[in-house]
Amino acid sequence: MHYPARQPFATRWNDNDQYGHLNNTVYYEAMDTAINVWMIANGDLDPQGSAIAVCAASSCEFRASAAFPEPLEIGIGVERLGTSSITWALGIHRTDAAEPIATGRFVHVFVDAATRTPIPVPAGIRSAVEGRLLA
Amino acid sequence: MHYPARQPFATRWNDNDQYGHLNNTVYYEAMDTAINVWMIANGDLDPQGSAIAVCAASSCEFRASAAFPEPLEIGIGVERLGTSSITWALGIHRTDAAEPIATGRFVHVFVDAATRTPIPVPAGIRSAVEGRLLA
Amino acid sequence: MHYPARQPFATRWNDNDQYGHLNNTVYYEAMDTAINVWMIANGDLDPQGSAIAVCAASSCEFRASAAFPEPLEIGIGVERLGTSSITWALGIHRTDAAEPIATGRFVHVFVDAATRTPIPVPAGIRSAVEGRLLA
Amino acid sequence: MHYPARQPFATRWNDNDQYGHLNNTVYYEAMDTAINVWMIANGDLDPQGSAIAVCAASSCEFRASAAFPEPLEIGIGVERLGTSSITWALGIHRTDAAEPIATGRFVHVFVDAATRTPIPVPAGIRSAVEGRLLA
Repeated sequence: MHYPARQPFATRWNDNDQYGHLNNTVYYEAMDTAINVWMIANGDLDPQGSAIAVCAASSCEFRASAAFPEPLEIGIGVERLGTSSITWALGIHRTDAAEPIATGRFVHVFVDAATRTPIPVPAGIRSAVEGRLLA
Repeated sequence: MHYPARQPFATRWNDNDQYGHLNNTVYYEAMDTAINVWMIANGDLDPQGSAIAVCAASSCEFRASAAFPEPLEIGIGVERLGTSSITWALGIHRTDAAEPIATGRFVHVFVDAATRTPIPVPAGIRSAVEGRLLA
Repeated sequence: MHYPARQPFATRWNDNDQYGHLNNTVYYEAMDTAINVWMIANGDLDPQGSAIAVCAASSCEFRASAAFPEPLEIGIGVERLGTSSITWALGIHRTDAAEPIATGRFVHVFVDAATRTPIPVPAGIRSAVEGRLLA
Repeated sequence: MHYPARQPFATRWNDNDQYGHLNNTVYYEAMDTAINVWMIANGDLDPQGSAIAVCAASSCEFRASAAFPEPLEIGIGVERLGTSSITWALGIHRTDAAEPIATGRFVHVFVDAATRTPIPVPAGIRSAVEGRLLA
């Protein structure tokens, strides 16, 4: 998988669970955060606006572990750009390594904030995905 | 301290940090949750309504540790009922023990959800605090 | 999918994200917690013992949303019991509803706590899965 | 209060609660993380070593709110360096502001990882605190 964008992700003391490594849920926090930061910065997503992205499905495969205080980097790509949905592909990386320690997928469906019914992917986000992640 | 009300608090796998006990931040999640559940159940708090409670100050003293999968109970009392604020006193207990493993304090200030300026404690919550926690 | 076991899962104030519903990562906390509670109660898993279960893959499909203070119930089943791994199937339910609001999958691989190399599923857990979830 | 050291703290999507701002517990995650990163980098703290720091008390006063995706900076100072304990003073800042949006205190007691009984503050950490934070 190719990840045209990358975002840093700082770990926290309480991300490590009893087994001394990042709990599996932290990887989902990382992916969710990276995508939203990217959409806010590049596609004018306004989390308080009328178009919001809800998670319809997500998954992650864990290949190696990491631990606080290690910083991570999240690679961001797009597998599919639909009418109302985006299927993101993500790679969680150690900062000095080419191979990801985990790979994930996140399906976002855009909905109206009030009615929660599907709406088209907002134009700013569609255009950013096409220009920067699918080009 | 006297806690007229008690609420269960279930622990989660990822509450335990690297040291094998509940991370200190979990106690604040427990206190915040217990107070809000109590206000919703007894004082008609509507988290989507126009009167919301924001945290102005909080504190906790930790006397003993606990760990997932241990269930906890949160004792709830009120130290001071002001015009716009409530100072809650909380005791985190093992379910079989009289002495708390931690004691905390939470100062809530009620504000208008839109303007975020202070408003009086809503009547339903004031009446519930007076009748059930301060009587 | 059939879920032979069920566990309660209490939501917390801070589980609701900016969109007023449970953040997607909370569903993974719920699944991870439910499985571990089940293994501790039924299969003598000792989180401080020499055999630990690490997450090799997980996924979730979200069909409807839920929000604090709503309590949930987690249905637990097993799709596959391997030599070193268990593939769990999970259903997140409202307490009064037969249909899950989300369904998930969690692949646990048992490893030696010190070396982190795969080991057989501990006998107590294997036997509990066979007797209670696969029977 | 004077904060001789500063550490960045990145916010996450799920740090914002239902009220659209960072949940109060996130400030404690930020303080805990900043202190531990500082001790690891400057005082050779090894979270898997025999001397660990447990939280005996903490508190925070909230003056203004912040929200994801805003990055924060945590000012770190020390109020008191005892035999076994350190009382940290912390200021949570917007990156472009001199005045903190919240101020906190964290009392760490060093204990033996196995027996959990108090031990002296490790020499490397004592020396770093004296040289960099109390000088």
